[in-house]
Amino acid sequence: MRIGILTGGGDCPGLNAVIRAIVRKSVQSGDEVVGFRDGWRGVLEGDTVPMDLAAVRGILPRGGTVLGTSRTNPYALQGGGDRVLATLERLGVDALIPIGGEDTLGVATKLAEAGVRVVGVPKTIDNDLDATDYTFGFDTALGVATEAIDRLHTTGDSHHRTLVVEVMGRHAGWIALHAGMAGGATVVLIPEQPFDVDAVVEHCQRRFDSGYSPIVVVSEGAKPKDGDWVLTTGEKDAFGHVRLGGIGTALASLIEERTGRESRAVVLGHIQRGGTPSPFDRVLATRFGLAAHDAVHAGETGVMVALRGTDIVRVALTEATAQLKLVPVERYAEVEVFFG
Amino acid sequence: MRIGILTGGGDCPGLNAVIRAIVRKSVQSGDEVVGFRDGWRGVLEGDTVPMDLAAVRGILPRGGTVLGTSRTNPYALQGGGDRVLATLERLGVDALIPIGGEDTLGVATKLAEAGVRVVGVPKTIDNDLDATDYTFGFDTALGVATEAIDRLHTTGDSHHRTLVVEVMGRHAGWIALHAGMAGGATVVLIPEQPFDVDAVVEHCQRRFDSGYSPIVVVSEGAKPKDGDWVLTTGEKDAFGHVRLGGIGTALASLIEERTGRESRAVVLGHIQRGGTPSPFDRVLATRFGLAAHDAVHAGETGVMVALRGTDIVRVALTEATAQLKLVPVERYAEVEVFFG
Amino acid sequence: MRIGILTGGGDCPGLNAVIRAIVRKSVQSGDEVVGFRDGWRGVLEGDTVPMDLAAVRGILPRGGTVLGTSRTNPYALQGGGDRVLATLERLGVDALIPIGGEDTLGVATKLAEAGVRVVGVPKTIDNDLDATDYTFGFDTALGVATEAIDRLHTTGDSHHRTLVVEVMGRHAGWIALHAGMAGGATVVLIPEQPFDVDAVVEHCQRRFDSGYSPIVVVSEGAKPKDGDWVLTTGEKDAFGHVRLGGIGTALASLIEERTGRESRAVVLGHIQRGGTPSPFDRVLATRFGLAAHDAVHAGETGVMVALRGTDIVRVALTEATAQLKLVPVERYAEVEVFFG
Amino acid sequence: MRIGILTGGGDCPGLNAVIRAIVRKSVQSGDEVVGFRDGWRGVLEGDTVPMDLAAVRGILPRGGTVLGTSRTNPYALQGGGDRVLATLERLGVDALIPIGGEDTLGVATKLAEAGVRVVGVPKTIDNDLDATDYTFGFDTALGVATEAIDRLHTTGDSHHRTLVVEVMGRHAGWIALHAGMAGGATVVLIPEQPFDVDAVVEHCQRRFDSGYSPIVVVSEGAKPKDGDWVLTTGEKDAFGHVRLGGIGTALASLIEERTGRESRAVVLGHIQRGGTPSPFDRVLATRFGLAAHDAVHAGETGVMVALRGTDIVRVALTEATAQLKLVPVERYAEVEVFFG
Repeated sequence: MRIGILTGGGDCPGLNAVIRAIVRKSVQSGDEVVGFRDGWRGVLEGDTVPMDLAAVRGILPRGGTVLGTSRTNPYALQGGGDRVLATLERLGVDALIPIGGEDTLGVATKLAEAGVRVVGVPKTIDNDLDATDYTFGFDTALGVATEAIDRLHTTGDSHHRTLVVEVMGRHAGWIALHAGMAGGATVVLIPEQPFDVDAVVEHCQRRFDSGYSPIVVVSEGAKPKDGDWVLTTGEKDAFGHVRLGGIGTALASLIEERTGRESRAVVLGHIQRGGTPSPFDRVLATRFGLAAHDAVHAGETGVMVALRGTDIVRVALTEATAQLKLVPVERYAEVEVFFG
Repeated sequence: MRIGILTGGGDCPGLNAVIRAIVRKSVQSGDEVVGFRDGWRGVLEGDTVPMDLAAVRGILPRGGTVLGTSRTNPYALQGGGDRVLATLERLGVDALIPIGGEDTLGVATKLAEAGVRVVGVPKTIDNDLDATDYTFGFDTALGVATEAIDRLHTTGDSHHRTLVVEVMGRHAGWIALHAGMAGGATVVLIPEQPFDVDAVVEHCQRRFDSGYSPIVVVSEGAKPKDGDWVLTTGEKDAFGHVRLGGIGTALASLIEERTGRESRAVVLGHIQRGGTPSPFDRVLATRFGLAAHDAVHAGETGVMVALRGTDIVRVALTEATAQLKLVPVERYAEVEVFFG
Repeated sequence: MRIGILTGGGDCPGLNAVIRAIVRKSVQSGDEVVGFRDGWRGVLEGDTVPMDLAAVRGILPRGGTVLGTSRTNPYALQGGGDRVLATLERLGVDALIPIGGEDTLGVATKLAEAGVRVVGVPKTIDNDLDATDYTFGFDTALGVATEAIDRLHTTGDSHHRTLVVEVMGRHAGWIALHAGMAGGATVVLIPEQPFDVDAVVEHCQRRFDSGYSPIVVVSEGAKPKDGDWVLTTGEKDAFGHVRLGGIGTALASLIEERTGRESRAVVLGHIQRGGTPSPFDRVLATRFGLAAHDAVHAGETGVMVALRGTDIVRVALTEATAQLKLVPVERYAEVEVFFG
Repeated sequence: MRIGILTGGGDCPGLNAVIRAIVRKSVQSGDEVVGFRDGWRGVLEGDTVPMDLAAVRGILPRGGTVLGTSRTNPYALQGGGDRVLATLERLGVDALIPIGGEDTLGVATKLAEAGVRVVGVPKTIDNDLDATDYTFGFDTALGVATEAIDRLHTTGDSHHRTLVVEVMGRHAGWIALHAGMAGGATVVLIPEQPFDVDAVVEHCQRRFDSGYSPIVVVSEGAKPKDGDWVLTTGEKDAFGHVRLGGIGTALASLIEERTGRESRAVVLGHIQRGGTPSPFDRVLATRFGLAAHDAVHAGETGVMVALRGTDIVRVALTEATAQLKLVPVERYAEVEVFFG
C-alpha cells in the first residue's frame, strides 16, 4: 500500500512523532510512505520526499516537522482540488494521512467526499478541537508557559511589581487556564470569559496586600467585559507595519496605572510551540500515528483519530471539525478559587 | 466544618498541590483544615498542624509533602482503629480526606464503614489504580525517565554500548511503557509481559547492526519468561545487608555477555519521585483537591475522586482499590512496533 | 560582630545564595546578621529583618531575593547619606555587605569613604562589570536564552521563516554573544558592534539558501551602523503610554521586507532574570558570599569580591565600578565564524 | 591544508561543538577536515569520514560525538605508533587535532615528538586537568547532579530519610564539590579528603535534629579515613560478574545503621555524561575548537588549548598532562561551612 502524509498549518511539538510512528508501522506492514513537503502545497505541486526508516531516525524528540508546513489551502485556489486529486492519482497514493488543524482537516473532509481514502490526525496547540480530549503540543506549550510563570514569581516578588504573561489561545483559553492553575496565577483571563477590569485590579491589589506580587496570565484572545475599554489599533512601528502591542502589554499598563505599582508584560510567543515535545505529547502523537495507520488498513475514510480517556478512537471528520472546544464555565470556576 | 487531611505511603510530586487546593477552597467556604503529620501516625498520635493560607503559600511547585508521610497502618496495630476514631472525635473532625495509595485508601474504606465521613484522593506514582485514568506523580516520573533516556542515547551511540535503564514499576509497567515509547527505546520490558531473553538480545543486536546503540527500558518488577534464568539472591554488601543488584544490572550483564559489546545499567531510583511536579500533575492534583472538598460538602463518604477523560468523578472506595490497573496487551503491542 | 546586608537594583538569580552563604558563615563565626529590606530604602528607613538560620532555609535554589530590592539611591535624596549613617550607627552595624550593581556599589564606595566598613558583592545579569570574570545570574540568563533559541530552530525551519530573538544587554552584548554561540545563531547583534543592515539580510538569505531558517539574536541595546535606519519613537499604546516595539520587533519587520519571507520576533524579557539559578551561579554566588564575610573579618573596607579564573579575589570598589566590561572585537570575531 | 580530527576516551557533552567549530572555521579558511572514527582506532585502521558543512549540521546541541570514540591506545599495540604515522602520511594529513583526556593527549604528545603537527583539545568530565580552569562537559554533569539533588530534598524530607547521591569523580571531587554546594548538601565527600565516618553520621544526625533530612553527596572515588571500615570486594551478581555496590550504596547502609533512620542511595552514573551540553559547555567547546584551528594555522605543535580566566591560551602538552587538578583544601573548607 502507498500512503501519503503531510503536515499543515502552524507547527506543533509532536508532529515528527506522528510521522515516525506512521513510517515505522508502515515498514513493519510492508507499506510505502510518501511525504508531501509543506502541507497541501506539496500535494498541489507533487513535491515529495520518500519516507523510509532513515528519514525518521532521531526525529522523535525534535520539535517542528521534518516535512515542512504551510497554510496553503487547495480549495482556495482555482482548480486546486482537482490538482490534488491528479497528484494522488499520478503518484499512486492509496490513502492519505493529513496531520493538521481545522483548515487541514477541512480539506481532508472534502477529499474524503471526493472519494479519496483519508484518515486525519488532529493538531492544535490550543487544544480547542471538540472531538478529542487532548491534542499533542498542548502539554509542551503548557510546560513552557508554566516554567515561565515559575520564573516570574520570584522576580515579581523581589520588585513588588505585577507581571502579566500573555500566552497562546485566540479563541480558547486552555493554555492560560492550565498554566495559570499550574503556575499559581493571581488571575487568569481567557477568551471565553470577558473580564471585568475592576475585578482584575482588585485581585492584584489583594495579592499585594498579602505581601506578594501578582502574576496575571492572559490568553492572547482575552477581552474585557465592558465595551468602554478597547485596544486601539493602527499604530505603526519603525517600518510602517502595524505592530500593535497585544492584550498583555495593554493590561500591564492598565494595572500599573490602577494599582500605582510597576507592571511588566511578557509575551511568550513562539517559544510555546517550538522545541522538544513533552513525554505526554510524544506518547499521544505516537499513538495517533499508529492508530491512523490502523484506520487506513481497516479501510476507514473520512475519519480522524482522537483521544477519549486513555483510548484512541475514530470519529467522523465532519463531527471533528464541527465546533471549537471552549473552556466551560465550571472549569474556569476551578481556577477562580485561587484568584487574589 | 472541620476537615482533616493526611498524606500516606510513598511521596509523590503533586501531594502539596492537593493539600493547597483543599486549604484554599476551605478558606473560601469557611471551613477549617487540620493537617495530620506523617500519615496515619499523626492521626494515631493526634500530631496535628493547622493548615491555613500561610501554611500553603508557595508549596504548589514543590515536590514531596509538607505534611510528611509514613507507612503506618492503624489497623495493623492493636486497637489502632479505635485510637483513630478517638482522635477524630476528640479533635472534632467532621470529615477526613486521606491522600494515598492502596494501603491508605484501604484504611479509609474501613473508617468509612465505621461511620467516618471519608473522601479519598488516589496517589500512586506507578499509575496502577484501576478506577482513574491517571494519578498525579506519574507524568513527573515519566518526565524524569524520558529525560534520562534522551541523555543516554548519545552516550550509548558514541561508545557503541548497550544502556539498560531501570525505572519504577513493581507490578505495573506504565512508566516503562510510556518512557520507552517517548524515549525511543529499543526494547521495553514490563512486569505484565515476562520477557524472552533471546528476543531481547536479538533486538539489541539488530539495533547495533543498523549503526546505533540499544537502549533497554525495564520496570523494576519485570521478569524473564523462562524459569531457567533467575536472579540469584542472598549477596551481601560491605555491611552485611542484602543489596542485590536489581533486574537492570543483571540484564546489562546478560546483554553484554550475549552481544559481546559493553553494556551499562542506570537505575533511576528516587529521582523519579522527587522534585517539582509537571504542569499536568499540578493541574490534576489541584483538581483532585478541589473535587475532594466538593464531595465532602456534598455529604459523600466512602468515595474517592478519579479522572475519567477530562472529568473528575467520584467512585466508591471499595471499587477503587479492588484491582490493579495493568498494562493491557494491546498497549504493549504499540511499543513493540518500535523494537529493534 | 553585627553585619548588615542588602540587595539593590534589578533582581538576579543567585542573590539568595549570597545571602544564605553570609548568614551560614556568620552563624559559624558567631556574628549576627541584619537584613535591610528593599535595598537602600531599608537602610534609610531602618526597615530590617533578622537573618538567622531559619530565614535562609531552602532559599538556595530560589530566584529573586528574600530581602526585596529597590532602585532607591540615598545620595539622590536630601540628607540621604546622613540618614544611612545614622541608621547604621543606631543599629550598631559594624560592617555592611551591599549586593548590587554599579549604582549600589557606587553608594557603597561613598559609604566606605565616609568611614563605614563596606565590602561589596557585584551583581549584574548583563555580566558587564570589568573587575570580575563573571557575575552570578549571567549563566542563568544564558540558559533561558539558549533554551529559547533551541526551541525556535525547529519552528523556524518548519515554516521557513526568520526568527529574531531579543535578549537583555543594554550596553554590553554578553548574553547575545554567548547565547548566540551556544544556540547556533545565524547572526548575533550586540551594542558594541553597530550592525550593517545589508549584511544581516545577506546572512539570513544565505541561511535560507542552505535549506534552513535563520535565527537572529539581538541585544536590546544593539543599533544599526548607518544613520539612515532608525527606530522611530513616540508611538503610544492603548493607554497613551509610549510602548515602542524594541529592536527585535523592528528587525523582524525589516528582515521580512527584505527577504520576502515571514519573520517573527520573540522578546524574552523578564523570564531571563527569574527562576532558579543555574549550578554555576549558585556556586559563584555562594563563594562570593563566603568571601565577602571573610573580607569583613579580615578588616577590609572599600573592596568588592570578584572572580579571577577560579579564585575569588578582592578588588577596590573604585576600580570595580570604573568602567563597563564590553565585548571585545576578537570575541565577536569568534561568533562571526558561524554567521550565515 | 588537511586537518585530521578524532575524539578519544569517555564521551562528554560538548565534543560535537568542538568538532563543528573546527569544521566551520576550516570551511572559512579553505582547509579540509578528515574525521577519524572511534578515536585512535580510526587512525590505526584508516577509518575516516569526510567532515564538511553537512556533516556538522545540527550537532551543536547534541551530546556524545558524531565521530564515535574508543579507548584504543596505539602505543599499547605492537607497531601501533608506526601505523598511525603511516596513516597520516598516506592520507596527507598536515595536522592532527585529537580531542580527549589524559590518555588521548598522551598519545598526542608522543606523536608531536615524532614530528607530527599536533594540537590537543582537553576533555575530562571530571574537570581534573591541571592546565585549564575548566573543561567542557563538567558544567553539564554538574547540572544533572544538581537537578537530582534538588529533586531528592523534598522526597527525603517527606520520608525523614537520608539520601546518598553518588556522582562521578574517581580521583578528583570537583563534581561532588560543586553539586554539593549548589544543591545544599548536608555532607560532601571527595577522594582528596578521606572522610571520618563518625563525623558524617553526626552531620546527618544534626540535620535530622533541625527537622530536615540529610543529603550526602559522595564522589565514586571517596574513601573513609580510617582503615577499619572498608568496602569488601569480590561479590558476584547473577551472572558471576563482580558487581560490587559502590561507595554510595555502602554509605547508605552505614548511615541507616548508625542513625537508626531509613537511608537510600542513588547512583547517577551515565546520565551525568549524556545529553545536550549546557550553554557554558557549548561556548567553551566552541572556543576550544576555534582556538585549536588557530593554533594549527599558527604553526604550533605539541600544544593544547586551555581556559585561563576568560581567555583561551596554549600550553605545552607535556605540561598539560603532568598532573591531576585536585580539589585544594581551601575549596573543601568552603563547602564544609554548610555541613550539618
